[in-house]
Amino acid sequence: MAPEWHSTPCQFADFDNFIMNLDTLYSELTLKTKTKMVLLVLDGLGDIATKERNYVTPLEAATTPYLDAITQDAVQGRMIPVAPGITPGSGPGHLALFGYDPLEFQVGRGVIEALGLGIELKAGDVAARANFCTLDKKGIVTDRRAGRIDTAVCEELCAVLSKKIKKIGDTEVIIKAGKGHRFVVVFRGKGLEGPLTDADPHHEGAPIPAVKPVDSKSAKAKKAAKLIVDFYAEALPLLAKKHPANGFLMRGIAHQPEIATFEERYLLKPACIAVYPMYKGLAQLVGMTKLEGPQTIADQFQRYLDEYDNYDYFFIHYKYTDMYGEDGNFEAKTKAIEELDAALPILLQKKPEVLSITGDHSTPCAVKGHSWHAQPVLLTSPISGSDKLDRFTETGANLGSLGVFEAKFLMRQMQANARMFDKFGA
Amino acid sequence: MAPEWHSTPCQFADFDNFIMNLDTLYSELTLKTKTKMVLLVLDGLGDIATKERNYVTPLEAATTPYLDAITQDAVQGRMIPVAPGITPGSGPGHLALFGYDPLEFQVGRGVIEALGLGIELKAGDVAARANFCTLDKKGIVTDRRAGRIDTAVCEELCAVLSKKIKKIGDTEVIIKAGKGHRFVVVFRGKGLEGPLTDADPHHEGAPIPAVKPVDSKSAKAKKAAKLIVDFYAEALPLLAKKHPANGFLMRGIAHQPEIATFEERYLLKPACIAVYPMYKGLAQLVGMTKLEGPQTIADQFQRYLDEYDNYDYFFIHYKYTDMYGEDGNFEAKTKAIEELDAALPILLQKKPEVLSITGDHSTPCAVKGHSWHAQPVLLTSPISGSDKLDRFTETGANLGSLGVFEAKFLMRQMQANARMFDKFGA
Repeated sequence: MAPEWHSTPCQFADFDNFIMNLDTLYSELTLKTKTKMVLLVLDGLGDIATKERNYVTPLEAATTPYLDAITQDAVQGRMIPVAPGITPGSGPGHLALFGYDPLEFQVGRGVIEALGLGIELKAGDVAARANFCTLDKKGIVTDRRAGRIDTAVCEELCAVLSKKIKKIGDTEVIIKAGKGHRFVVVFRGKGLEGPLTDADPHHEGAPIPAVKPVDSKSAKAKKAAKLIVDFYAEALPLLAKKHPANGFLMRGIAHQPEIATFEERYLLKPACIAVYPMYKGLAQLVGMTKLEGPQTIADQFQRYLDEYDNYDYFFIHYKYTDMYGEDGNFEAKTKAIEELDAALPILLQKKPEVLSITGDHSTPCAVKGHSWHAQPVLLTSPISGSDKLDRFTETGANLGSLGVFEAKFLMRQMQANARMFDKFGA
Repeated sequence: MAPEWHSTPCQFADFDNFIMNLDTLYSELTLKTKTKMVLLVLDGLGDIATKERNYVTPLEAATTPYLDAITQDAVQGRMIPVAPGITPGSGPGHLALFGYDPLEFQVGRGVIEALGLGIELKAGDVAARANFCTLDKKGIVTDRRAGRIDTAVCEELCAVLSKKIKKIGDTEVIIKAGKGHRFVVVFRGKGLEGPLTDADPHHEGAPIPAVKPVDSKSAKAKKAAKLIVDFYAEALPLLAKKHPANGFLMRGIAHQPEIATFEERYLLKPACIAVYPMYKGLAQLVGMTKLEGPQTIADQFQRYLDEYDNYDYFFIHYKYTDMYGEDGNFEAKTKAIEELDAALPILLQKKPEVLSITGDHSTPCAVKGHSWHAQPVLLTSPISGSDKLDRFTETGANLGSLGVFEAKFLMRQMQANARMFDKFGA
């Protein structure tokens, strides 16, 4: 069960002293209305101004005539993805954008990895990140990454395991190779639950520890832990002669949580138009329909036009801002923003009632990775009002009427702009 | 007893898992000091900039020399009335301005309606919104609004009921007509409590359902529910020949909650100078003294001068900004702001130590109703500092040092500016 979180303005207690989530209030006020909303996510959009780059960010450096035109009738702000100073992975970053408190709805790393590899998880599936390692004759881990074997070798080994281990008892086992020495194992059966401790000593020179339920009282977690033991018993002999990949470690072992679907929470029919499996997976986690096919942002916008009548909410994901931010490639990140801007007129052929453009977090070029810096956000609707800013930038967003706020509230702002909330109190 | 609240940065838990309210901390730090504070509420003040109005809001369009002069030595910010995206009614809007968390102190609709009609409620009174309806011979509701009878007819029918039903057992019954088919019933007795479910099928073609306690374990609510049944038994025969108003529905049945008075919370003697009953009622809910009489803002400011020595805190309410916002009348809302500005020199004859000017929420002309948009707030005191802004406007407030914050904290800012808080920690 998800932990109870107590944060403002997020939660309150009712008269029976039962802790009630602010989500419940939002739900009670939610009206079923006709609307078209678009959440356009430029992954890792946020950046920082530094002396080396003459205090200009990629968003500021980019030539963005279409974004600029939208900005005139929009409000801006900056969003804290999770909590001040916390750098999120893609999972928490996107759950927050979808309006789910990323602290309440924690999704295990194994689940995220499985989603990232395109495995269609079901509620209750237990997933683990795994990677091949090298064991000595006594079972001591001598190389946690098995000499960083090639992806091709990893795929071959996973095929060996998959072929021999299809089931353990009545539980289905799904094994899928990732990059290099990495793979994912999913257990699909009844009465399973995570999280479990890692089957990983986290340093060389020690044996693989046995996994244990994090909650020692959970019978379901005990069953899952037993499965891992049985899986090791069947799998290790198959790898015995595969040195340096004669063993494997498992981490982040968790189950796919039961999450109220996006449609249940918001009374909106959602669709996801993403290119990369991870983001499709995260959308699927909350029950969005995946619209497959498009490979470019222009194609993605075209697909939105084609499907306009079929959904109420469209999550459109653009990866390249994050990718080039991770590379520290300022010019490429700037160009990625310009390419998205150039395609915007396609989206705007049927302007949604509510359009929000933002990132799931910042990926500053100077950091070469995800960061905690609040990402800029833009929101426009016929009743959003205007902050009278000429451009959508980090520094401009500092002047916006939305202020600095937690990303999980963006969805609530979008709903309000779609007139989806009844008045609170008389 | 007030429910326990769990919020950040408002609340915290100690190691024994005892939840402590941030209000408790504020109370502990509160010092008794001599001060004069004024909260000047321009109801529904906040607005939005739209293309149709050349991106100017009423506050920006208005000529406000006296407000401008105050602004030089003031700080500004924007306030979220309840939570992001939530549009408040007048009740939650004002409770927040008075420093009471509007999620913690929820006041039933019946109570608000009774206050709005000028009934002086006491703690424990159970109040219901009611309206006349039409019943057929089998007791089925055929018109939920009794053909929208005139106010005069409603008053006549309420007089009939009032005359015959003064008490039920030892419980006093107070009946007061509102507009059209609407009226209010208050039950004043011992050991009563709400909320109850509605005596209203919410659609035609069904009988009036029996009310039930929302909390089935509450003996007090059971007693209140029984009273409603007895009230119907006595009242319906009196209306039998009054077709189309031969029945009535009751909704929002709730008790006036026990709320720590303003004076208890803040050690300040408060007065309310309002024109409309609803706002007097809300002030009375927290124990403010109502200073009756003034009908114009100039009169209200004059009354403040006259009563300057008798109170520490003055809540002055100005209705017209909201009224014209609801009408979508931009020019009238602008003019209402100018009229208030013209009267400001009266108030400033005895400048309060702490003066805050704001709205209880936004009522944008383009929305023609209350909205969730954060309202601008201005605060001035000898130690407020200055944000060096020339005017008090929505866009200017975005740049203020108060930032975007929850309205319930305004009172704390006012107290701080009156040096009412001791230092926290060494």
